[in-house]
Amino acid sequence: MDRTVFNLTAAGQNLEDLRMNTPERSSIDAYAAREVGAALSPFRFEPSELSPLEVDIEITHCGICHSDLHLIDNDWNTSAYPLVPGHEVIGKVVAKGDLVSHLEVGDRVGVGWQCGSCHECEWCERGDENLCSHIAETCVGRPGGFAERIQLDARFAFPIPDGLTSEAAAPLLCGGITVYSPLRQHARPQSRVGVIGIGGLGHLAIRFARALGCEVTAFSSTPGKEAEARGHGAHHFVSSTDVSALKGQRESLDLIIATVNRTLDWKRYIQALRPDGVLSFVGALDEPVSVPTGLLMAKRRSVTSSPIGGRVAMREMLDFAARHRVGAQVEVLPMSEVNTALDRLRKNDVRYRFVLERD
Amino acid sequence: MDRTVFNLTAAGQNLEDLRMNTPERSSIDAYAAREVGAALSPFRFEPSELSPLEVDIEITHCGICHSDLHLIDNDWNTSAYPLVPGHEVIGKVVAKGDLVSHLEVGDRVGVGWQCGSCHECEWCERGDENLCSHIAETCVGRPGGFAERIQLDARFAFPIPDGLTSEAAAPLLCGGITVYSPLRQHARPQSRVGVIGIGGLGHLAIRFARALGCEVTAFSSTPGKEAEARGHGAHHFVSSTDVSALKGQRESLDLIIATVNRTLDWKRYIQALRPDGVLSFVGALDEPVSVPTGLLMAKRRSVTSSPIGGRVAMREMLDFAARHRVGAQVEVLPMSEVNTALDRLRKNDVRYRFVLERD
Repeated sequence: MDRTVFNLTAAGQNLEDLRMNTPERSSIDAYAAREVGAALSPFRFEPSELSPLEVDIEITHCGICHSDLHLIDNDWNTSAYPLVPGHEVIGKVVAKGDLVSHLEVGDRVGVGWQCGSCHECEWCERGDENLCSHIAETCVGRPGGFAERIQLDARFAFPIPDGLTSEAAAPLLCGGITVYSPLRQHARPQSRVGVIGIGGLGHLAIRFARALGCEVTAFSSTPGKEAEARGHGAHHFVSSTDVSALKGQRESLDLIIATVNRTLDWKRYIQALRPDGVLSFVGALDEPVSVPTGLLMAKRRSVTSSPIGGRVAMREMLDFAARHRVGAQVEVLPMSEVNTALDRLRKNDVRYRFVLERD
Repeated sequence: MDRTVFNLTAAGQNLEDLRMNTPERSSIDAYAAREVGAALSPFRFEPSELSPLEVDIEITHCGICHSDLHLIDNDWNTSAYPLVPGHEVIGKVVAKGDLVSHLEVGDRVGVGWQCGSCHECEWCERGDENLCSHIAETCVGRPGGFAERIQLDARFAFPIPDGLTSEAAAPLLCGGITVYSPLRQHARPQSRVGVIGIGGLGHLAIRFARALGCEVTAFSSTPGKEAEARGHGAHHFVSSTDVSALKGQRESLDLIIATVNRTLDWKRYIQALRPDGVLSFVGALDEPVSVPTGLLMAKRRSVTSSPIGGRVAMREMLDFAARHRVGAQVEVLPMSEVNTALDRLRKNDVRYRFVLERD
């Protein structure tokens, strides 16, 4: 039993009584990988009993993130099969536990990578649940969002503001918060922000940075993406394969968000930082970054990274996105075509994020 | 002519008149390396005319920093010979230009690594002159503090509070500010601070961190230094060669200041950081640091570095040091024995800083 539940129920309510009030849950249809790297196939499972602090969400949309491929391929040695990926969920609350007070049945909500935390540690108490040592992850060790329904701790289901469509909002729940967090932490409206890579994360980083009032420079190895980058809001475009153009960026940026997952000439990007500048890695790099500390020292620069965002940041990001109409540019496919989407994502053949819609 | 001088004099005073008021400067006796890596020998030079914003300081003490060895050895390809090292200067003002209003003849002042900046850029205006792109360095391209006198922009001569002896204060001007700056930027009294290396920089880092109210852990490859570390104020001591002890530090520190100049198992130290923790390198490392960004991401950790400190930080550091009696533990030698000191420093045979006293 979850300690938090126990603490809350111990305050006066009987846990068994609360569980008794929850209606029987019916089985859930989903798509699962049966083994490492396998195509997904239909999979039915029985949900566990809905606990008093949980909600049951009928899924309408689920974005596909590169992390889903990593999980299918067991790249992080955390995967168990059958594995139901999906952690950019939008849906409607169809049932809630008796202790859930901030959501109602019928509410449109979103769920990201994180679906639980201890709610008791220093970081949870600060609203930085993403830094909790006991985080639960939406599709690690439990079925994720490529499914008919999902149930989880209601504190990690976030109301979606009316201004956002479900398909544009879905990728915000993981991709959006991933790039919004370093912007929130390190950028001011006056900042010069660089974004490396114009993909699922990168196009959202450009859109958020522009909406935040920053001067935005997009870096891409694909010169043909210049028009797209400017369309997302970039003021400047630099071809990352053009060494002299990179050199020309020296000491020009306050924050660089690297969304790529391959190794670049990081030294050049560190040199592109102004004093007190920050290089933040939000992509999952396969190699350590080689950092000449002299380059950090000369201008008091930093190299950092951050994981998704806590509940406060998540709510703030969704509000900000709705107010500024920052959504993902997506290609929507029926959930039954999940394997087509995954295959194309493996080839980077998507502008910029697939969102599966329940057929 | 220095632009700043021009701007100030243009406001109503005639520069030539000001220069005329300055008394003739007599020649200066110093110790210089005549070629790369050479022992120092007596060297006499004629100072340039004292400009209206400069002071002439009669040196009483000068600390020896590892950077002096790097300069003598031309490790940074910036050295010109004859080279007069020395940038931890304490002395008395013996003459001042007519535009110097914050110092008087007779004042005891200190001079560190920096002796000039543009005073016009964003960073100078913020009081972060150490981040200025046009910094002048006390013993690079001009004679430093292993000398009878030094003259420089008076804005980089800092009054030494009465509570500090000259020999304990000298190393604060470079070594002290170097470790105080990251503490000032990243530590609160509630912070857990680690210090790697217990030498010239490290013992000052421990003393400052303790005085700032932090919980202090010293890391050293010399187990015999435990008693010394605790004597400086460390609450805990960890042998950096003891892998299981290092592992035991996992997620325990908010800030680690690495004062060493050799490569360690940095991954373990990054893992020793709590969420939002910072690893700051203040030693001159000869190799880039290999940073697995996944370790940064998991806990929103950062790797950074900083160069000395600006004028605001310098004055603050000296005040704080005087109030808390934080001075360097030094061995004082007459300036005529500079080569003995340099030879012993090359062997790390000093606790913890040599200070040369003018004979």
